[in-house]
Amino acid sequence: MINETMAILGKERSAIRELFEQGKILKEKYGKDKVYDFSLGNPNIKAPESVKNSIIKLISNDDKSSLINLHGYTSAEGDKNVRTCISKYLDSTYNAKTDPNLIYMTAGAAAALSILLKALTSSSNDEVILFAPYFPEYTVFIKNAGAKCITIKPNLSTFYPDINDFKNKITKNTSVVIVNSPNNPTGVLYKKHIIEVICNVLQEKEKEYNHPIYLISDEPYRELIYSDDAYPFITNHYDDSIITYSFSKSVSLPGERIGYILVNPLCADSKKIFNAICGAGRSLGYVCAPSLSQFIIPDILGSTSDINIYKNNANFLYNNLKSIGYDVIKPEGAFYLFVKALEDDDIKFSKKALEQNLLIVPSTSFGVKGYVRIAYCVDESQIKNAIPKFQELYKNYKY
Amino acid sequence: MINETMAILGKERSAIRELFEQGKILKEKYGKDKVYDFSLGNPNIKAPESVKNSIIKLISNDDKSSLINLHGYTSAEGDKNVRTCISKYLDSTYNAKTDPNLIYMTAGAAAALSILLKALTSSSNDEVILFAPYFPEYTVFIKNAGAKCITIKPNLSTFYPDINDFKNKITKNTSVVIVNSPNNPTGVLYKKHIIEVICNVLQEKEKEYNHPIYLISDEPYRELIYSDDAYPFITNHYDDSIITYSFSKSVSLPGERIGYILVNPLCADSKKIFNAICGAGRSLGYVCAPSLSQFIIPDILGSTSDINIYKNNANFLYNNLKSIGYDVIKPEGAFYLFVKALEDDDIKFSKKALEQNLLIVPSTSFGVKGYVRIAYCVDESQIKNAIPKFQELYKNYKY
Repeated sequence: MINETMAILGKERSAIRELFEQGKILKEKYGKDKVYDFSLGNPNIKAPESVKNSIIKLISNDDKSSLINLHGYTSAEGDKNVRTCISKYLDSTYNAKTDPNLIYMTAGAAAALSILLKALTSSSNDEVILFAPYFPEYTVFIKNAGAKCITIKPNLSTFYPDINDFKNKITKNTSVVIVNSPNNPTGVLYKKHIIEVICNVLQEKEKEYNHPIYLISDEPYRELIYSDDAYPFITNHYDDSIITYSFSKSVSLPGERIGYILVNPLCADSKKIFNAICGAGRSLGYVCAPSLSQFIIPDILGSTSDINIYKNNANFLYNNLKSIGYDVIKPEGAFYLFVKALEDDDIKFSKKALEQNLLIVPSTSFGVKGYVRIAYCVDESQIKNAIPKFQELYKNYKY
Repeated sequence: MINETMAILGKERSAIRELFEQGKILKEKYGKDKVYDFSLGNPNIKAPESVKNSIIKLISNDDKSSLINLHGYTSAEGDKNVRTCISKYLDSTYNAKTDPNLIYMTAGAAAALSILLKALTSSSNDEVILFAPYFPEYTVFIKNAGAKCITIKPNLSTFYPDINDFKNKITKNTSVVIVNSPNNPTGVLYKKHIIEVICNVLQEKEKEYNHPIYLISDEPYRELIYSDDAYPFITNHYDDSIITYSFSKSVSLPGERIGYILVNPLCADSKKIFNAICGAGRSLGYVCAPSLSQFIIPDILGSTSDINIYKNNANFLYNNLKSIGYDVIKPEGAFYLFVKALEDDDIKFSKKALEQNLLIVPSTSFGVKGYVRIAYCVDESQIKNAIPKFQELYKNYKY
């Protein structure tokens, strides 16, 4: 009979999508340039030329069997050559030791996470730890896998996880911990020292409970970093680690649904995990990742869209909001700014912002209260024109 | 903890994939042209020119926002214009009354079925009826949805479902019935009269149990029909009907993962079903169907690959196997031939065929015993060269 839970999930949309839809209505009413939509993490920079060139090269090959191959089924785990190229690229870029046989091509990071969480959990006792604030769809995928979601509060000065809370909440049932850096929604980069702290805690707890605790590093924003710092390559720091990656943001291909899962060869039961990934992918209806998108990857590895545009947006918005008087977390990566709401209730604050035609997402959706997320993957002109509106919004509270 | 069920599902592969992998080994040993691989339903005809032309047109548009849009997220349910084009095409081709707001774009038919079965069932009591022989992955998706799988035996002279068995096995818990035509694995076309019989039974049972029983028509082979008969458009025959469609076979794009779910506007609770589909898609990690593949659809609706090639293969193979002495079901569509095994145990028979380097799939995987499936979406030369091998195989049993 019709699944009520799914009907509600489908009807309610995420808070982010909901706001996006409200924005559409406002745009019709006031005109597109009079609505300041910072709701969606939808890249507004075009894909690099290498994407177009690769597609043209591939479809211009007139050899019949190449053409059939181009749009044909690949292995469920992905084309062998594509996986080998990714592995080589990662090894040389991050001084890693990856194994192409442990790379599984997916229809983007959402598919990667949904598949992986199903592979790594097997009962409603299994616990998956999230560091708040977190990407809200994580909870949807955890529920789909049938596991329990445990959240760790942030240290409010760094927006890294509160390590004591983390230590206290790891139990014998902890199967998985998810870290997301550069972070959605805070824009914070997890630097080497905090990754080491997290990994040390996990190593101790693995010993204490005598079973592996898998660390998923969700990295759709890996290349979107605006400082000289880098995000450590997780497999070099923790054996029981698995990466979920997407080409959605780095090369602006979010609609094409292409990414991968990488299992650290040093993982406990790495081969079995890989089998469980194949099984979960099959079970959820993923036959293979889209083929043309797979085949362009060897041609685009290492190239990115012009991310200086995001960097400029970040700096401009950060400086202006600071000078108005907002309490803003310094953005280090991704394309999000996390700002303290001017009242305790972030949902009310977001509604107040809507009166200025400003669409900003309340932080309650990300598992913490009292903040809003501003997605600055939008036109420079929108950001410039929005500044007076942020000023008005501030005046409503402070004068 | 690692999901054992998924690990087994991932390791075991389907019987079809297993055979395909064995074929790879044989090909290395004996040479590619000495192995007769009829295992996979992987189209060997290239996509029509309209696909290539459409891709080139779309990526050659230099307008920045068009390019961002081309590879950008669409709505979760798919691009509005694409859905409208599909709706108009179906209405004019099949004299149907579809609603673009009830079309949900998917990553192929597997995703469509996985999502839809999750949307239409909600407990382990819910029963999904399959007509044997059936595509084996149906059972995987039913298990993923947590429902029960009920199979109906075939009428062995027509390979339509045994209608008495069907009537007897519908219970108050029957949520869904799946019909697949032209059929994988038999190649049989469900003509109007049998569709009417099935729909009449369902209408009676709906009245008896006083709740809707949804009929899913899974139609990846809709355009692959070799007679003058057509497959009836199901929404014209039964209100509570839903179509799952894929562009994998008709235009040879299996790797691109593009298809749709169409909910009949006359369906009981059609809007709620659509919400449940959106929720299930979100829950399984499907953000949207691949965008470039969506956008080519308006340009390719109505075109097909050169399916005369399949028709010729079907006739050649059917006539030759018949004249050797095999008992073969007359192929009417799709690209499969269903042949009676020469011993009761179809798995043993398939192994015996392997000694001739013939790769044919035992019917046990499809839920009936005593047959094999021959997928003839292969080169004409392979079929010609395989005939003496089928002759040898026959001799092993009959002389």
